[in-house]
Amino acid sequence: MRVYNFSAGPSMLPESVLKKAQAEFLDFEGSGMSVIEMSHRGKVFDGIAKKCEALFREIMGISDDYHVLFLQGGASQQFDAVPLNLMKTGKADYVVTGNFSGKAAKEGARYGDAKIIASSKDANFTYIPELKYEDFRTDADYVHITSNNTIFGTRYLDFPKTPTPLVCDMSSEILSREIDVNKFGLIYAGAQKNIAPAGLTIVIVRKDLAESSTPNCPTMLKYSTQANAESMYNTPPCFPIYMAMLVLEWIKSLGGVKEIQKINEYKAGLLYNFIDNSSYFKNSVRIKDRSIMNVPFVTPSEESDALFIKEAVQNGLVSLKGHRLVGGMRASIYNAMPVEGVKKLIEFMKAFELKNK
Amino acid sequence: MRVYNFSAGPSMLPESVLKKAQAEFLDFEGSGMSVIEMSHRGKVFDGIAKKCEALFREIMGISDDYHVLFLQGGASQQFDAVPLNLMKTGKADYVVTGNFSGKAAKEGARYGDAKIIASSKDANFTYIPELKYEDFRTDADYVHITSNNTIFGTRYLDFPKTPTPLVCDMSSEILSREIDVNKFGLIYAGAQKNIAPAGLTIVIVRKDLAESSTPNCPTMLKYSTQANAESMYNTPPCFPIYMAMLVLEWIKSLGGVKEIQKINEYKAGLLYNFIDNSSYFKNSVRIKDRSIMNVPFVTPSEESDALFIKEAVQNGLVSLKGHRLVGGMRASIYNAMPVEGVKKLIEFMKAFELKNK
Repeated sequence: MRVYNFSAGPSMLPESVLKKAQAEFLDFEGSGMSVIEMSHRGKVFDGIAKKCEALFREIMGISDDYHVLFLQGGASQQFDAVPLNLMKTGKADYVVTGNFSGKAAKEGARYGDAKIIASSKDANFTYIPELKYEDFRTDADYVHITSNNTIFGTRYLDFPKTPTPLVCDMSSEILSREIDVNKFGLIYAGAQKNIAPAGLTIVIVRKDLAESSTPNCPTMLKYSTQANAESMYNTPPCFPIYMAMLVLEWIKSLGGVKEIQKINEYKAGLLYNFIDNSSYFKNSVRIKDRSIMNVPFVTPSEESDALFIKEAVQNGLVSLKGHRLVGGMRASIYNAMPVEGVKKLIEFMKAFELKNK
Repeated sequence: MRVYNFSAGPSMLPESVLKKAQAEFLDFEGSGMSVIEMSHRGKVFDGIAKKCEALFREIMGISDDYHVLFLQGGASQQFDAVPLNLMKTGKADYVVTGNFSGKAAKEGARYGDAKIIASSKDANFTYIPELKYEDFRTDADYVHITSNNTIFGTRYLDFPKTPTPLVCDMSSEILSREIDVNKFGLIYAGAQKNIAPAGLTIVIVRKDLAESSTPNCPTMLKYSTQANAESMYNTPPCFPIYMAMLVLEWIKSLGGVKEIQKINEYKAGLLYNFIDNSSYFKNSVRIKDRSIMNVPFVTPSEESDALFIKEAVQNGLVSLKGHRLVGGMRASIYNAMPVEGVKKLIEFMKAFELKNK
């Protein structure tokens, strides 16, 4: 029996996508080969890679002013790659709203003057700081933000206007709501939440920003290396690219990001509404900054948190344990989490509250 | 119908492994999740990762003096990572025996004095240079070699004795024959030939060599980053790790690398023997240096090469086109290529020779 998996990533994939991949696992479209066995330079895989990029561009509304790169290494590698490519004058502005944005800023500081413009650490990252255009340096190379904070359950409702290119780690919310790519200089995202299995990192970078890099940038971290080779400078992570293609087809079949966003807002609305009306469960995030992807919550005690997590598993609701930095529970309700999964979680929470209050 | 796929990588995987992965694709061992959906920090995936490493250590005979790291980025990323970690005095020796060893040397030269000790470029890389201990510098940080040259079809029968740690790109022959890991300071290999689908790079590194790195090494390229985190500093490429575990179980079931080597030598022997006894097909590699993984060959003309490749596809023998640097054909006969596939290729070659000679 399939469970509802609330893992922060890797996470659920649409069951129809898994079934399609399973059915053609030993023979992709009559090629006589598994998609994981074929040369990345052959016609069949080239068709998959091209279709994946075309669908991604269509669904995200990405213009020809941007490269879309299919890379390896995870968002963590982008914490290095972003400054090594873009920090040409040696200055960059960072906004710290959680664990990963903090890590990004720390890496940035290895390469130059990485200034923390704002942070919500003062309230354990339960809100997104207000950011004004004037807060940023006009002579920096970029501004770095993390649009959705997986651990703390916050997200930028709107994005700041900045005097320099806006660089955004969108790993845990890409494809979950409509965004205007033209507002960004660079967007990067690890695939393992809303796109595909782990092992693929997508970078959307304005072409002028990818033309050159800093002198110390290793060849494999240069955006130009893969941009000039259409992401095939070396063997790409073929299987996650294929799975991304299937997931993008699934998103398109549902009506695109616009429709997915409605479903996501509905799912998150159900869960927040239940929590806010409960005197037992609590979410501490400022309401306007709440993520629609990751919903952390607690019961009144650590003991009942532990019991909740244990009994949830027995009810087919798994990976609900919160990150060690915040404790309690976290329900990651990415695109592939069905409405039914959220409803089942809420029913379980209701019953647990009645029994343990 | 499954074809025989002679691709240089990604390449064939054992059919029994593909079938097992397919069968449990939607529900891994009763977890209710696909292996590609589960948290890498959960118990189930942790068990897979640990089993994969244990099997790899057992099958390769790797002692506790070495870390085994499961990374992303491909061998190409190691062309950067090796000097960025190891080139502490700024000197390294490289042996150039083909395209990838040349690329490795070129990247090395970005970081310091990368001296090319020997090269077989003078004869279009059709042999492995003789290397004496005295050829290497005693004050370099390491010696870099590529043990099997995928494009040119050569391999080191024996490895050189060196005064400094021997670093080896073993991508296209790892697990194909017995080697003594203790002779090496560092071995790296992209997985997509003999281990797993693309997207995983395994690094075996002597622990003392991984303790520190050069000052310019990005955090994500430092061996210590992943060594200290048991390859889980960030989300690893979970699916290729799982597939590697299955492939390693398959190797073990066949009797380990010792037995696989016998099969590989038998397969390669059949093919070289046929080519050497043919007055139509030709392989130009010095006999003692011939690879048992990649067998390049030509007919007397480019026209008949093209016809051969075309008709081979019609006979279920695919991806036989040689690399553009050498032309002609190349049969990559990795561990997962059945003896039957090689026999069928030889039969086709015989018939083609009769018809076209």
